Amino acid sequence: MSPSAGSPPGPPEAEGAALLLDLLDRRGWTVAVAESLTGGLVAATLVEVPGASRVVRGGVVAYATDLKETLLGVDPALLAERGAVDPDVAVAMAEGVRARLGADVGLATTGVAGPDPQDGHVPGTVHVAVVAPGAVVVRSLVLPGDRAAVRDASCAAVLAVALEAVQHG
Amino acid sequence: MSPSAGSPPGPPEAEGAALLLDLLDRRGWTVAVAESLTGGLVAATLVEVPGASRVVRGGVVAYATDLKETLLGVDPALLAERGAVDPDVAVAMAEGVRARLGADVGLATTGVAGPDPQDGHVPGTVHVAVVAPGAVVVRSLVLPGDRAAVRDASCAAVLAVALEAVQHG
Repeated sequence: MSPSAGSPPGPPEAEGAALLLDLLDRRGWTVAVAESLTGGLVAATLVEVPGASRVVRGGVVAYATDLKETLLGVDPALLAERGAVDPDVAVAMAEGVRARLGADVGLATTGVAGPDPQDGHVPGTVHVAVVAPGAVVVRSLVLPGDRAAVRDASCAAVLAVALEAVQHG
Repeated sequence: MSPSAGSPPGPPEAEGAALLLDLLDRRGWTVAVAESLTGGLVAATLVEVPGASRVVRGGVVAYATDLKETLLGVDPALLAERGAVDPDVAVAMAEGVRARLGADVGLATTGVAGPDPQDGHVPGTVHVAVVAPGAVVVRSLVLPGDRAAVRDASCAAVLAVALEAVQHG
């Protein structure tokens, strides 16, 4: 699944996805994705890679906050106290999707795509998390740009964190 | 959420998503998406529309076949007998995501993106289904093009079927 040396450079998300899936495949690990603000974009980017079915289990788009509890098992007290845009919620989403979909590695995104603020957080406030064997990583960002730019950058960020977590895991 | 008369025409998926969400919003209905070959693309297309959170509950990417049973409640006997690329499986996925995510309308996609055949079905074989109040619609297609083209066309097809089902529901 590695891009060949002669292939033209694609968008950073596609390149990150191919690198990640190749590394997961070598380790014999599978992956699942829990998404809020990216709404399915991370999972869609992963399955674009030919051969993805060897590695990608699937994902949950928990766009409505209550689904983070019912579909992913995020603690309702945590959601009530902090809201959905929170680094610990991102980690709980990654842990939840990994457990419920039976994957080795869980990825998660939560944040505010905009244009309006949410729970007092400005648009572009994003938390991405990765849970892998031996690694729990969360990264908090304030991303510039419009709704589409924030979602694209969130997707690239969680793939980059996953690549690091799996490389060093 | 309607595109204004003066806005430039976007890709057909984006236009279909905005029209669908606008219609759902007027009816006070919510939507959830179950995806196999599209891998999150349909959900991501819906949440691109500003104001999507009023209407979009979320989705399930059941890429691995066993997740169609565990996450969406598709009958394992049906999956064992027909495989995942089947019109009745598409309907069961739409019904399952609608029930489990508490939405009024359920959308589903299943099929073969390629490049290889799956369960004896040629690449481009796709079934899309929509379950709405008073309507169950499934459409079976053989779509041309590569992996990305098949997934884009599948996304556009399920949005078009949903628009019809909700307009006439």
